[in-house]
Amino acid sequence: MLECDKLISGGRIVLMDRAKTIIADGSIAVSGKNIAAVGSRQEIEARYTAAEIIDAKGGIVMPGLINGHTHAAMTCFRGIADDLELMDWLNNHIFPAEAKNVDPELSYWGSMLAYAEMIKSGTTAFCDMYIFQEEAVKAAKEAGIRCLQGEVLFDFPSPNCKTPEEGLSYTENLLKRWAGDDLITIFIEPHALYTCSQPLLVAAKALADRYGAPLGVHLLENQSERQQLDEKFGKSAVAFLNDIGLLDDRFIAYHCVCMDDADIKMFADHGCKVIHTPESNMKLASGVAPVPEMIACGICVGLGTDGCASNNNLDMFQEMDSAAKLHKVHRLDPTIMDAKTVLETATREGARALGLDRLVGQIKTGMKADLTIIDINKPHLTPIYHEYSHLVYAVDGSDVDTVLINGKVVMKNRQLLTINENQAMDRVKKIAERVKAGMDEK
Amino acid sequence: MLECDKLISGGRIVLMDRAKTIIADGSIAVSGKNIAAVGSRQEIEARYTAAEIIDAKGGIVMPGLINGHTHAAMTCFRGIADDLELMDWLNNHIFPAEAKNVDPELSYWGSMLAYAEMIKSGTTAFCDMYIFQEEAVKAAKEAGIRCLQGEVLFDFPSPNCKTPEEGLSYTENLLKRWAGDDLITIFIEPHALYTCSQPLLVAAKALADRYGAPLGVHLLENQSERQQLDEKFGKSAVAFLNDIGLLDDRFIAYHCVCMDDADIKMFADHGCKVIHTPESNMKLASGVAPVPEMIACGICVGLGTDGCASNNNLDMFQEMDSAAKLHKVHRLDPTIMDAKTVLETATREGARALGLDRLVGQIKTGMKADLTIIDINKPHLTPIYHEYSHLVYAVDGSDVDTVLINGKVVMKNRQLLTINENQAMDRVKKIAERVKAGMDEK
Repeated sequence: MLECDKLISGGRIVLMDRAKTIIADGSIAVSGKNIAAVGSRQEIEARYTAAEIIDAKGGIVMPGLINGHTHAAMTCFRGIADDLELMDWLNNHIFPAEAKNVDPELSYWGSMLAYAEMIKSGTTAFCDMYIFQEEAVKAAKEAGIRCLQGEVLFDFPSPNCKTPEEGLSYTENLLKRWAGDDLITIFIEPHALYTCSQPLLVAAKALADRYGAPLGVHLLENQSERQQLDEKFGKSAVAFLNDIGLLDDRFIAYHCVCMDDADIKMFADHGCKVIHTPESNMKLASGVAPVPEMIACGICVGLGTDGCASNNNLDMFQEMDSAAKLHKVHRLDPTIMDAKTVLETATREGARALGLDRLVGQIKTGMKADLTIIDINKPHLTPIYHEYSHLVYAVDGSDVDTVLINGKVVMKNRQLLTINENQAMDRVKKIAERVKAGMDEK
Repeated sequence: MLECDKLISGGRIVLMDRAKTIIADGSIAVSGKNIAAVGSRQEIEARYTAAEIIDAKGGIVMPGLINGHTHAAMTCFRGIADDLELMDWLNNHIFPAEAKNVDPELSYWGSMLAYAEMIKSGTTAFCDMYIFQEEAVKAAKEAGIRCLQGEVLFDFPSPNCKTPEEGLSYTENLLKRWAGDDLITIFIEPHALYTCSQPLLVAAKALADRYGAPLGVHLLENQSERQQLDEKFGKSAVAFLNDIGLLDDRFIAYHCVCMDDADIKMFADHGCKVIHTPESNMKLASGVAPVPEMIACGICVGLGTDGCASNNNLDMFQEMDSAAKLHKVHRLDPTIMDAKTVLETATREGARALGLDRLVGQIKTGMKADLTIIDINKPHLTPIYHEYSHLVYAVDGSDVDTVLINGKVVMKNRQLLTINENQAMDRVKKIAERVKAGMDEK
């Protein structure tokens, strides 16, 4: 018999490999941070013993979900303003609240609360853009959650950095400090093409190239942004990005609602990645991204929730449900964005979009043990005919029972083991009181 | 001091009255089946004492949600077939599975499981159409859940009734048997205009009029139904219904995706009711109902999940979230279907659509105590700025802690008190094995 550290015993194991393997009654051996073996329960448990047995109780075991785009600390602004015109929402609510309130404390505790919410809804890795990201990284290390983290870069001052140069240098310090970390990847995040000048974009790309890091940017979120950029550049924003040398396989674009066929082809040719954010695009009335065309064209598409001010939660199960349904009704075609395709955007393809595909996104021997175990012994999950269907159309975040990241159990039977959930809630409630007081002053 | 039976103590009480009252720290006195008083905690607890105190623990107390359209027993077919063309889905999957499997046992246990799911997600009343509805009613009485129940009527045989006459007579027996019941309302449900002839529709209406009962029908679910009916009648289906005398304020139409301005005006003129089913319409790629126009025109619009084969759950919180977001992205207008409007479709307006508005849909002295208490002490519900926003965009069914129907506690701290949840799950799992065996035979 071989020794391993943990045995996840029983359950329907959804590998998310290209062969669409589902093991009806499987087990997974975990050694250190890695998946040592996966197979039928009989086969694995004949070969492995472990000190710690995690009984999956006939539930579904899947790769941890990957949230491809969020602003974690914006949990502090959850539901602060809804149902408003985009520019009213941004200029009269979100930006003023941020200018007045964002500080290292908000970044740390808002992020920690987001990590609690993410782990409790089965997310094991995410890609974040916000302010004072050293704090967000510190919280992520304590929580033991995998992530890409970047400080937002603007032409204008942020609460953290007074100039673009400060932003780049803050980012470079993060890159140096967290180089080689096995949970944290630092990357470069110019906010958008309407908030970052060409010199800033080019400098950001040079920094990304120097460190071999990805570069992520909000792009073509709605029609008014498209028009504005078309006028500014005299060509498509994507063509502009290509001209200044930003497009390559480490380029990650968030939203991409208003991409035309030429943009899609250029993205595909350069191996650029897209993060689709359907619920945020719906709530802000941005439009429907041409995701089926992107996938057909070979673009790698991940899935993200965006921040809590425009969703208003971080539940990737609900996001998958919305992704599957939105495209069907938009095209009047019930066959597109089927459950399997949507699940891929939240797992294997999501990992590839973030450059994490050698580590996570599938259940596979040698990959990291980032695993989500779902309790299906509930009325709304009874009966079960097809696992993919259940995961996209019936399960929601609160059905997640146990979560492992990098081989470590971070939640067991819905109890968080690395985060003091009550403390995080208390601290964010106090921050929200300060935010409210500021709103009343206005 | 006045005696009452139960005091719901503390919490943010969302009345869902027209004045949009929210009591920051309120209490509710319940006497028998009724709300005896509602007000600030201080005021109510100075006036009332009760043997049973239900601590709302700072959560949100709201009227129980009203699911305006479902096929409860179809929990047995949850996720049996997805991502298919509508006619492929219906003719090759749903109808054959129903013909082979629907019997009184499936109707009873499938319904009971649905009621468990509904109560656990905060729904206290619903409007159901299915087969062998005596069983669905029996289960509802045992569960203590409020409902409208109708046996589906077709020109062709159903598993229960061989002819339309049998269907009408079965319905009339239900009407007689359950007359005056305080939880059950029997009503008349011809399936649709493409499955019911004019004589059946007219006979159904005569029966409805004889008993003063509502009449509910699937109507204009997608463009192909609209075309088919336009050709069949040589006029709009709504004009046809008007010509044969079906339209009045007890007429309830489900879906109504493809209604034009003239249809909407005719519905408004006759006081007809509409049940909007956004998630089912999205998943089946039916289209987007013109709900903002209907509401602007004065039509009473409720909200429903449809059955579990086309959703695939009965969670009205998720349905509200989808309703709010779908219309925004469809119109590219983030201000329409705001949180308050959507909440109304699931509470006060939903009650009015079903003719239950003198009983439920608001928290109001003298109305029935159908109440849903939500635990907001959770990461994904922290912080809270606005209650309406939270209920639509952040809460989901699993956040419901305690539910009262007709003054009786049917769930406390997520424990169902009137339904044996494990038994219902076991029975439906056994039924699903039979369904699967039938699929394999095919």
